[in-house]
Amino acid sequence: MSVEEVLLELKRRVQTKLPPNINVTGIEFEGPELVIYTDDPRRLADDGEIVRSLAKDLRKRVVVRPDLKVLADPEGAVKKIQQVVPPEAGLTNYYFDGETGEVVIEAEKPGLVIGRHGATLREITKLIGWTPKVVRTPPVRSSTIANTKEYLRSVQSERKEILKTIGRRIHRDVASKDQWVRITTLGGCREVGRSCMLLSTPESKIIVDCGVNVGSDDSATPYLYVPEAYPLNQIDAVVLTHAHLDHAGLVPMLYKYGYEGPIYCTPPTRDLFVLLQLDYIDIAGREGKRMPYESAMIREALKHTITLNYGDVTDIAPDTKLTMHNAGHILGSSICHFHVGDGLYNVAFTGDFKFEKTRLFDPAVHTFPRLETLVMEATYGGSNSTQPSRKEAEGRLLKVVRDTIKRGGKVIIPAFAVGRSQEVMIALEEAIRKKSLEEISVYLDGMIYEATAIHTTYPEYLNNELRDLIFHKGINPFLSECFVQVETSSQRSKIVDGDPCVVLATSGMMNGGPILEYLKALGPDERNTLVIVGYQAEGTLGRRIQKGWNEIPLSAEGKTQTVKINLEVVTVDGFSGHSDRNQLMDYVRRVYPKPSRVITNHGDESNCLDLASSIYKKHRIPTMAPMNLETVRLV
Amino acid sequence: MSVEEVLLELKRRVQTKLPPNINVTGIEFEGPELVIYTDDPRRLADDGEIVRSLAKDLRKRVVVRPDLKVLADPEGAVKKIQQVVPPEAGLTNYYFDGETGEVVIEAEKPGLVIGRHGATLREITKLIGWTPKVVRTPPVRSSTIANTKEYLRSVQSERKEILKTIGRRIHRDVASKDQWVRITTLGGCREVGRSCMLLSTPESKIIVDCGVNVGSDDSATPYLYVPEAYPLNQIDAVVLTHAHLDHAGLVPMLYKYGYEGPIYCTPPTRDLFVLLQLDYIDIAGREGKRMPYESAMIREALKHTITLNYGDVTDIAPDTKLTMHNAGHILGSSICHFHVGDGLYNVAFTGDFKFEKTRLFDPAVHTFPRLETLVMEATYGGSNSTQPSRKEAEGRLLKVVRDTIKRGGKVIIPAFAVGRSQEVMIALEEAIRKKSLEEISVYLDGMIYEATAIHTTYPEYLNNELRDLIFHKGINPFLSECFVQVETSSQRSKIVDGDPCVVLATSGMMNGGPILEYLKALGPDERNTLVIVGYQAEGTLGRRIQKGWNEIPLSAEGKTQTVKINLEVVTVDGFSGHSDRNQLMDYVRRVYPKPSRVITNHGDESNCLDLASSIYKKHRIPTMAPMNLETVRLV
Repeated sequence: MSVEEVLLELKRRVQTKLPPNINVTGIEFEGPELVIYTDDPRRLADDGEIVRSLAKDLRKRVVVRPDLKVLADPEGAVKKIQQVVPPEAGLTNYYFDGETGEVVIEAEKPGLVIGRHGATLREITKLIGWTPKVVRTPPVRSSTIANTKEYLRSVQSERKEILKTIGRRIHRDVASKDQWVRITTLGGCREVGRSCMLLSTPESKIIVDCGVNVGSDDSATPYLYVPEAYPLNQIDAVVLTHAHLDHAGLVPMLYKYGYEGPIYCTPPTRDLFVLLQLDYIDIAGREGKRMPYESAMIREALKHTITLNYGDVTDIAPDTKLTMHNAGHILGSSICHFHVGDGLYNVAFTGDFKFEKTRLFDPAVHTFPRLETLVMEATYGGSNSTQPSRKEAEGRLLKVVRDTIKRGGKVIIPAFAVGRSQEVMIALEEAIRKKSLEEISVYLDGMIYEATAIHTTYPEYLNNELRDLIFHKGINPFLSECFVQVETSSQRSKIVDGDPCVVLATSGMMNGGPILEYLKALGPDERNTLVIVGYQAEGTLGRRIQKGWNEIPLSAEGKTQTVKINLEVVTVDGFSGHSDRNQLMDYVRRVYPKPSRVITNHGDESNCLDLASSIYKKHRIPTMAPMNLETVRLV
Repeated sequence: MSVEEVLLELKRRVQTKLPPNINVTGIEFEGPELVIYTDDPRRLADDGEIVRSLAKDLRKRVVVRPDLKVLADPEGAVKKIQQVVPPEAGLTNYYFDGETGEVVIEAEKPGLVIGRHGATLREITKLIGWTPKVVRTPPVRSSTIANTKEYLRSVQSERKEILKTIGRRIHRDVASKDQWVRITTLGGCREVGRSCMLLSTPESKIIVDCGVNVGSDDSATPYLYVPEAYPLNQIDAVVLTHAHLDHAGLVPMLYKYGYEGPIYCTPPTRDLFVLLQLDYIDIAGREGKRMPYESAMIREALKHTITLNYGDVTDIAPDTKLTMHNAGHILGSSICHFHVGDGLYNVAFTGDFKFEKTRLFDPAVHTFPRLETLVMEATYGGSNSTQPSRKEAEGRLLKVVRDTIKRGGKVIIPAFAVGRSQEVMIALEEAIRKKSLEEISVYLDGMIYEATAIHTTYPEYLNNELRDLIFHKGINPFLSECFVQVETSSQRSKIVDGDPCVVLATSGMMNGGPILEYLKALGPDERNTLVIVGYQAEGTLGRRIQKGWNEIPLSAEGKTQTVKINLEVVTVDGFSGHSDRNQLMDYVRRVYPKPSRVITNHGDESNCLDLASSIYKKHRIPTMAPMNLETVRLV
């Protein structure tokens, strides 16, 4: 059956399910969703059950949209919304999308706009015709998110065409008589960086992650040129586990070389992706490096991004359904579960994951409806790669901060903007709030503030305790007065000359960014402390200082000056967003159902091999640690 | 450098190596050879050393050909050849190829045409201008070979263009900075049938074998549609280990689906390939089966075939050299050794191989200049798959024949036309010659006689003893009077009604062919014996009889009759062309140098896995038994 015929048949089935006086004026696949257009959305909205039962019956994600001619004018619509929604909801903004008939309503308390079981939302639909979509008014404005929204609105008609094309591709007819599922390793095997896997069947090709190894020139990019992946226009979908550059850094390049399909990720991953990509090409530009793509390609990627929330079961290819689950690594990070064929095979890619509750996130999800192969990271896969618990780590950090402050010094902490910074922030905030640390300022310099703003936009991606704190106790730790954003160099001077404090600054491995300004100013004074909370790669300044270098050449205004490193250097392990060896082994022990195969990647060679062999020895699950460029047949 | 520039540079270098009065009029890559055209081939021929030293210096296979304008007319040339060559050489035929300037001289004793260190051949070149190429006059005329030669002559100008294209492709510039070597399994893994492997590097793609599983409908063909292999016009070369259908049966289909490159194999493999392919589509046609290609495609394959002798080191891709070595399995069967890059990697594919001296062949070659990965067959890889020695097998066969004859019966032996038949023939011939068996007739029915004719054309591919017997003792066992070819059904009737005898007939598993006529006529008489010397696959008539069925439905002239199986059924193991378990293990023990990896294929799942694990346990060499559709990275 052609897609046209499928749509015709679906329209017929939908019409029979609807009350006779509701008219379906159009039906269309838009990305993974089946969109039903009707000239009387009010009636459909009356009965919330209809759409749910349609979705269940058709086994599709169903969205109902108004035929454009029934829409109220925006100004009148806003008034009606304000009439229906209680003022406590804190309505702050409205964005009307003429193409889709959607209105995005920003509110401080989205729940009050939605109402009990969606009653208020249905009421709005009835009154204005437009399909309301409610988002939370972010407590801290993120310019990244604002710009992303603005951009997506500016290309909405083009985007609708893209979604239609993607939708038709997803719902094309399947032809092959063969049944097999394969994984081809394009990058990130027996190494960290350039993560990239290809999941293929006779019907479809899906790329999971497409990272860059920023520390390498020779092996920076995945092996996208091999025939399994190239030409890229034959790829059905790109799925991102999370936004870090080693998992997503080369996604824009795909569009440069012919990819035209969708990117699936969670909403926070999309926003962090934009933030990190823009920063990446910004830094590369300043360092005079040649980038493999231009900023236009980031916009292209954004235009093709389809966001999914945890738990949404979504068709992304004729024979493949994707579901994302919390991975506990950074905001929006996902374990991506693929269900191939009708019960043929199930494989999950953990991406980077943390199997321990952290300040921000729940531990990674470890139960799935079905699971045959688990592809898991092995960053700390070696038998010696255990890490202190988060509690121990926090204890050590607080002690170091207290000691430093007591002697009149300042603490500087180099940190990745996304992930580790927020963990440290919350630990410090709680200590200050609970008076176990005196009231000092915690300065945020570099991208940390913006990344934090993105975190505050998605509280539903944080763990229960933190959500509870924010929603029920009214304490949003990110908004604590102890945090001060640093934006100018005069501000920096004041901090350097000021009271004892903590400075969190990028970059995490000290190979650039504002952290170097603080090092220059505070490095020579032995009362100060440099606290290293993240992994320092070989060849970085961070690693050198960790090793004990006490004279560092740093360039300032074109010339190189030598900085004396007299401050105390302390490494506090245990803040990692990766599962340590014990957590990795524990995950395999507890993952349900027990997979029949485990594949390790994202670790250096010995860690991947060690973890694979340990899992086999302990759990008798067949394992492998493939090299890059191999293909493993799953079934 | 473009190929044009390479050729120009080579011409310059060749010219400097030659005496000043010899003029290079042209230089061209034709297939893997560098062809130097000169208007004075006589002078070059004077000094045999020049070409050898050129080849060594340029690291290419160098051929010198006369510029066409210096060639003598064919009639005059023949006279001159006859003047120079001693009459004992037994000249029988001449084929002049106006395109290449070659004359193929057929002689009963090619050595006498070549002369000591090639002296006579050089003398001929000097006299006639044409480049002489000497081949043996076959003692038994093979119509396959005659037709093949005739066909190739008819397309010689087209073939020259093909060779030029192939030559330029082989010598193209290499561009990639990456270095890797991979094997992708397209068929014949954990199964027997449809053998097909892809050897790939960033520069080249080579298919090793492309067989058909004649016993299967679902899994008859290799997975050629996957992106690693398709589109086929990106394949650089197809290399055949031997001519059996499970290794070469789908080669013609490659040309139907866009392959345009060469097939590399030994000369006997080419001829047996043609014989078996024509028979294959003939039988399929009679059975009303749809073939995946037409006979025109067999001609296409033939047109693209480049033959190599054992030991010829040949460039077949910009970064790959191929050398074929005796595999001991059937006539012309080869272990194919690939040297990739300049010392980067060495991998050998055994194809089917026999690591035991047989009546016809030396045991498979087990030493190589270098070897990192060995891909080996596992037909008898299971720990219980030992076979009796050849000597024991022959002893049993002769006893069965003697016993049957003593009681006035006849022996019928179903046998594959190529391989096993000739082994049995030679065993019987020797027994008769040495009087350990009385002088009975051995009838050959089906393709056996033609296959035997091909064997007699290539005595240099037989083992030392057999060659010695033929050349020095003047006894060609294939020409023994005991062998009688059967061509008509009236001949068959006479045999059935005649004296005790042995009948060797196809097909080997009794699922067709003249063997069924003998079974019908001789099956009911209990004095007769059916001797099974080859493997009988599940589902074949041979297997059923082996299991003890004593009533067999056979169709004759449109209707089905039931044949009583009263004759004695004896299975004589030990004639296989495959190494048994002990020989496989022994091969791994003795192969030199010791490979760092062994991959098993061409055996059912348990045999492949059993052999792989036994090799690892015994020799501590890492092994694997991949599934089809996997890719293994070698380096």
